[in-house]
Amino acid sequence: MEVLNDILGYKNRKIYQDSDCFSFSLDSVMLANFATIRLRDKLICDLGCGNAVIPLIMSLRTDKQIVGVEIQKRLANMAQRSVEYNKLSEQILIFNEDMKEFSNGNYFESFDMITCNPPYFKVNNENFFNESYEKMIARHEIEINLGDLLVVAKKLLKNNGNFAIVHRPERLLEILMEFRKNNIEPKRIQFVYEKISKGSTLVLVEGQKNGREGLKIEKPIVMYNDDGAMTNDYALLQTEVR
Amino acid sequence: MEVLNDILGYKNRKIYQDSDCFSFSLDSVMLANFATIRLRDKLICDLGCGNAVIPLIMSLRTDKQIVGVEIQKRLANMAQRSVEYNKLSEQILIFNEDMKEFSNGNYFESFDMITCNPPYFKVNNENFFNESYEKMIARHEIEINLGDLLVVAKKLLKNNGNFAIVHRPERLLEILMEFRKNNIEPKRIQFVYEKISKGSTLVLVEGQKNGREGLKIEKPIVMYNDDGAMTNDYALLQTEVR
Repeated sequence: MEVLNDILGYKNRKIYQDSDCFSFSLDSVMLANFATIRLRDKLICDLGCGNAVIPLIMSLRTDKQIVGVEIQKRLANMAQRSVEYNKLSEQILIFNEDMKEFSNGNYFESFDMITCNPPYFKVNNENFFNESYEKMIARHEIEINLGDLLVVAKKLLKNNGNFAIVHRPERLLEILMEFRKNNIEPKRIQFVYEKISKGSTLVLVEGQKNGREGLKIEKPIVMYNDDGAMTNDYALLQTEVR
Repeated sequence: MEVLNDILGYKNRKIYQDSDCFSFSLDSVMLANFATIRLRDKLICDLGCGNAVIPLIMSLRTDKQIVGVEIQKRLANMAQRSVEYNKLSEQILIFNEDMKEFSNGNYFESFDMITCNPPYFKVNNENFFNESYEKMIARHEIEINLGDLLVVAKKLLKNNGNFAIVHRPERLLEILMEFRKNNIEPKRIQFVYEKISKGSTLVLVEGQKNGREGLKIEKPIVMYNDDGAMTNDYALLQTEVR
């Protein structure tokens, strides 16, 4: 059933969701905060934007144009209605299109910054058949895999443009290799840990097209204290943009 | 001036040091704790062992044979005397040899596990001329660089043997590329943060020769609380082996 929700504790932003097909994730919220927005950046893109949670949060950080691309008609429609509800139709444009086709269109080499929360799992993953088709596409590499995503990003980025993704740490090596293969030099990595006593469950990576070598490992994000309470750092992330 | 020190809070281990030419670092202590020692491992090596701090700590974790290789005569001599002082001459063997030559000798493809705390800085680093020659060799890639080190490790490792190093996070990409280039698949990475609010200053990486893909980002090591006091985790690391 479709509902109109708050985006966590962010003020002045509502979003349409439907738990049967798509609810935004905290991973997207972290990515919307992690990605660098430079003063000179004019045009921003979110690939596979779902219900537009990343554009909606990023619109709190910048007044520059943000383009969302979503292959699923139903989700693109929800995204469009969320944008309209928040009166952001002038800032946020939603395209219901396959990002591979989109990358060969009018926006070729146009973006200063691109974000993407891609499907994390390879198609051979065993959980494959337990989900709705909409969720399957969002979680599994059916419509696009990591290699193809980086080709799309490379095509859409201006020279020196940034590309930021969120993914699983198990795939970090593949991510770094695909970034480099497409001349997107990894510049910042941030690891997310559920608790300080456990291994990382999520990683944020940002690279720059034709950028110089020079990698920074950002401060860790620890979600919960050992007693199970949310850390201040993580709580702030859900209510305030940087 | 040469002195005989405790190795931090580790019981029953003393070590010869000389602040003019070489003192062991906490980086080495972290590596000696980080490296995996499997029950089946029979022969262990520490490349560029300095005054043998890593072999001395690892001898608290295992009773298997440990070989230390050190190119600098004075340091190899200090290492040998530390080994003898601790009555570990049967377990720990010190070779005063260039690791590149050592890798073509009797120990070719012999080790189950190899550790190395290599020089961190490229030779073009600006701090180059402010140090004694002994320190320069330990800190700068004069005698061996990262690429050559991985070739040495590959030669010395048995099939499925592990290689663990400590290094600077700025060089993580290069580390991962060189590991892969030499068929040492990165399996575990651990980041060290001085404070939880700051970027990582040190990284530990372990790979397996001809290992399968599958990377784990281990729990973070945070050294100090925001008030400047040492964390329990970090304090324990300096007194107890895992």
